[in-house]
Amino acid sequence: MRVLGVDPGLTRCGVGVVDGVAGRPLTMIGVGVVRTPADAELGSRLVAIEQGIEQWLDEHQPEFVAVERVFSQHNVRTVMGTAQASAVATLCAARRGIPVALHTPSEVKAAVTGSGRADKAQISAMVTRLLRLDAPPKPADAADALALAICHIWRAPAQNRLQQAVAAHRTAYASKGRTA
Amino acid sequence: MRVLGVDPGLTRCGVGVVDGVAGRPLTMIGVGVVRTPADAELGSRLVAIEQGIEQWLDEHQPEFVAVERVFSQHNVRTVMGTAQASAVATLCAARRGIPVALHTPSEVKAAVTGSGRADKAQISAMVTRLLRLDAPPKPADAADALALAICHIWRAPAQNRLQQAVAAHRTAYASKGRTA
Repeated sequence: MRVLGVDPGLTRCGVGVVDGVAGRPLTMIGVGVVRTPADAELGSRLVAIEQGIEQWLDEHQPEFVAVERVFSQHNVRTVMGTAQASAVATLCAARRGIPVALHTPSEVKAAVTGSGRADKAQISAMVTRLLRLDAPPKPADAADALALAICHIWRAPAQNRLQQAVAAHRTAYASKGRTA
Repeated sequence: MRVLGVDPGLTRCGVGVVDGVAGRPLTMIGVGVVRTPADAELGSRLVAIEQGIEQWLDEHQPEFVAVERVFSQHNVRTVMGTAQASAVATLCAARRGIPVALHTPSEVKAAVTGSGRADKAQISAMVTRLLRLDAPPKPADAADALALAICHIWRAPAQNRLQQAVAAHRTAYASKGRTA
């Protein structure tokens, strides 16, 4: 199960790709940040985010995309940008027929640290441990995108089991094909 | 000057196309609503809005797109959807290199009625009058999209003058070409 996690933002949009299934060691495939200049027009920023997300989808072909669910209890200006960046990421995935899951920040924190109120350092430490990295992922603000991907892998055991069954069926079918 | 006005929303996204320049009678070219089912997944709703906006851009080839500027002082859930729909409309226009202008609801109201606090009925009445329509535009909630387009035509006199100069230059050039 390969998941692209997206921590949406207009200025910095964190992206991270993780391979794995619940209960097995996870593997980081890639991590990065799609940046757009704060002084550019909204339209060109959204186009740049679309191009960035498309590149990540092309390169890593994820089966799922997990996007942070946006709330508006925070700073108004930031929230609008976050909602707009998340719309672009969701659109890019949906256009390709890739299922998009939304997870709240507290779901993500609880999934990787056991506490819905964990701080950035705790999340970074756990992401580093869970992905068996030598050092915390860089850029630092991309750790949240990896945490989103991990959260999705762990919170989707039913989907995951279904997918494994389909994969097993395909493998059995392919084996039969080869031996017939 | 042809402007596509977009009143963004996930369930109902109003669209209206108006031709004209400031100080001259305006002409309505088209009006409608892009709808998406409230029970559909966010991703497929954003894809449907993208397809709807693309159709309007293809069919009417506007030179400007005017989108309502989203504020978050209203209902949280609605605002998120509005921000996401507006992001898709802005992205579609920017991808084609069409300039996107954002106007606040009070700017739009003030432009077409003279009051930033006008109600829906007043806006609809003025849009009907300004576009010299026999009856108020239908669907009713598309009147705001037409008002946005009108607002943009009237608030962009500088851009407009520049554009007229370019058009005049082109016409002069074309005439020369023909007589040469």
